[in-house]
Amino acid sequence: MSMTIAEKIFAKASGKKEVEAGDVVMANIDVAMTHDLTGPLSVEAFEKIGVPKVWDPEKIVILFDHQVPADSLDAVTNHMIMRKFVKEQGITNFYDVREGVCHQVLPEKGHVVPGEIVVGTDSHTCTHGALGAFATGIGSTDMSMVFATGKLWFKVPETIKFNIEGTLPEHTYAKDVVLNIIGQIGADGATYKACQFAGETTSNMSVSDRMVMCNMAIEMGGKTGLVEPDQKTVNYLKNHTNKSYNIIKGDDDAASLEIMDIDVSELEPQIACPHNVDNVHGISEVEGTPIDQVFLGSCTNGRIQDLRDAAKILKGNKVSNSIRMLVIPASREVYTKALNEGLMNIFVDSGALVCNPCCGPCLGGHVGLIGPGEVSLSTSNRNFKGRQGSSEGEVYLSSAAVAAASAITGKIEDPRNL
Amino acid sequence: MSMTIAEKIFAKASGKKEVEAGDVVMANIDVAMTHDLTGPLSVEAFEKIGVPKVWDPEKIVILFDHQVPADSLDAVTNHMIMRKFVKEQGITNFYDVREGVCHQVLPEKGHVVPGEIVVGTDSHTCTHGALGAFATGIGSTDMSMVFATGKLWFKVPETIKFNIEGTLPEHTYAKDVVLNIIGQIGADGATYKACQFAGETTSNMSVSDRMVMCNMAIEMGGKTGLVEPDQKTVNYLKNHTNKSYNIIKGDDDAASLEIMDIDVSELEPQIACPHNVDNVHGISEVEGTPIDQVFLGSCTNGRIQDLRDAAKILKGNKVSNSIRMLVIPASREVYTKALNEGLMNIFVDSGALVCNPCCGPCLGGHVGLIGPGEVSLSTSNRNFKGRQGSSEGEVYLSSAAVAAASAITGKIEDPRNL
Repeated sequence: MSMTIAEKIFAKASGKKEVEAGDVVMANIDVAMTHDLTGPLSVEAFEKIGVPKVWDPEKIVILFDHQVPADSLDAVTNHMIMRKFVKEQGITNFYDVREGVCHQVLPEKGHVVPGEIVVGTDSHTCTHGALGAFATGIGSTDMSMVFATGKLWFKVPETIKFNIEGTLPEHTYAKDVVLNIIGQIGADGATYKACQFAGETTSNMSVSDRMVMCNMAIEMGGKTGLVEPDQKTVNYLKNHTNKSYNIIKGDDDAASLEIMDIDVSELEPQIACPHNVDNVHGISEVEGTPIDQVFLGSCTNGRIQDLRDAAKILKGNKVSNSIRMLVIPASREVYTKALNEGLMNIFVDSGALVCNPCCGPCLGGHVGLIGPGEVSLSTSNRNFKGRQGSSEGEVYLSSAAVAAASAITGKIEDPRNL
Repeated sequence: MSMTIAEKIFAKASGKKEVEAGDVVMANIDVAMTHDLTGPLSVEAFEKIGVPKVWDPEKIVILFDHQVPADSLDAVTNHMIMRKFVKEQGITNFYDVREGVCHQVLPEKGHVVPGEIVVGTDSHTCTHGALGAFATGIGSTDMSMVFATGKLWFKVPETIKFNIEGTLPEHTYAKDVVLNIIGQIGADGATYKACQFAGETTSNMSVSDRMVMCNMAIEMGGKTGLVEPDQKTVNYLKNHTNKSYNIIKGDDDAASLEIMDIDVSELEPQIACPHNVDNVHGISEVEGTPIDQVFLGSCTNGRIQDLRDAAKILKGNKVSNSIRMLVIPASREVYTKALNEGLMNIFVDSGALVCNPCCGPCLGGHVGLIGPGEVSLSTSNRNFKGRQGSSEGEVYLSSAAVAAASAITGKIEDPRNL
């Protein structure tokens, strides 16, 4: 039977020869990730189950990223709960406050390989589909069952494959592509589907770019984002992991496969306007909108490539005095690379504030909040009312390049104008 | 009449030929500094006075440092109040979230020169006496009167002059000297006195080191810390300010001058133990105490020299996995220097977390809090119960060198052992 890549992964994970979309399967989990914000709920639920030990302490990855360093007694208590759990359970893959954002650290440290089932107590766990795994966000109590049994049930999803063709025009990026798709199909346009990104444009993208697109799959309702592994995937993995893996690819004639063609050759920079991610406009419709803060970072666009794109634009320029710009690298590895490449100097010289790797204002519960009436231009993935602080604030989403250009002029700026 | 440096500054500031300790004078204010945490109270009080404009918008300096970037809606509201005030009043010296800690930025940006009266709504305003100004912390409502009139009443303080002699042994620093003094005379040992640091050891100290000592004057009850300006002061000012100034020195036979001799030639690294700054012990009495967090930073020891001292020890070593280490440069200038000197690489490589310039955990109200039962070793200036988070936590104070050494071993460590 022809199967999609998602179906093949679930067949493997559930020990079946064939599965098809709509089947409910009990899948073995390869990687179970949790962090400082949602982890304590999983731990509490796990302790109620009464199983003394987790199923496999080497398959659990715990990272601190949402509130690092701790900015409240609640945050520090969460950290303490997780450190205690790590110690008690002998969990080997633990990254304390120093390492960075879960969705960047997980692949960087080699925890994700093609064909795996990766679950995380974070909605943007779909990011890891960029490496050809089936990766999805789950609830904290669901995670407690994974801790106990190493298994979780899934309804095998249908797949929507975006065949993306065309050369991206200057100053457009993966972020613009995925925002454009979300704008076209809406926030519920791919509900519970595996969102597979394919086509020539995707093939030409780096793993980092593919992570940007998979990261946003949840914003169109997707159960996961996915890119079929190719030579770029293999090269990335060579530098990051010792785990063994088999490359799994889908069949083009799979029954549950829907295809949507996307042409990006005329794409302009895209902006998701308040207060929904699918409220997407070409930048020409919103340029000139005054802003108060620029946030460059997050699991969507806090990678070294994003910092390079932004630094290229900021170099020799100053951040407008009317705004503040936060640069928050997604991980210590990204931070170190940016240091070594001289990007930090560019950011600091321009007047941007470089913070430690963390989720930053993205969750609205740590540093970098906006106030009533303030406007944020952000490279992150969500712009819901109140997402970055005040419910009377507004959040626009863009690429790193647009963020950098806008930081210079203090308003939403098309980088092609500079 | 012979006068102390403090008396001479107050005579000048109040337009009198002579004043003596105990006199109440109305002094003209040269620099009025406020920040994001206490500033909104001053603004509120100023608006109640009903004077439409501040006395001199060029003599007010407003900086954001305590909660940057904003980590709560209260913090962001404070920022918005201050930005509005700056705009309405045409205040020219305003440093938004990007610049750093007030007591570092004020001298760096050339706002303080010898002989001035500097007031700030922050208890560690005494830091600026290192440049031969009379600098002191005042209440937020007192500041509202300064905003309105440019004047404030003072009782002219007596002076206690610490004649510090001897060469500092290896791995002892200004911080050890001042902790030692506080340990000797107690938290109320210099109540309402000008604490003048003098002697050969002080003469040999950099302006940065002198700031460390003056910063801690408040911790022995002092109204200010003071160092008589000398060639080092002049050299510092040459690089930092265009303001004109006259050097004011005190008379050794002034009536209100008390002298205390300090010999540092046998000093060992000093630790202020929980929960009072004057609970000071030689490191040999407390080494081996397990810690959970190291904080390198603050207006006391977040300067480039401190970062250099720490980096020298950390280079090629790793921060213990059992703890976290936060490195928080005191300003953007310090951050930039540390970048250019390769110190950031050393910190990041060692596993320390480098944060943006801010007050960090020092105030217990922003990032880097400790939890119940946790122990912090901190280069800051206060270790009161709950100061860095949980009231069930403990804070030890030390030099940057002790902080770095302790980060490596995960317990209070004498750098002379490494």
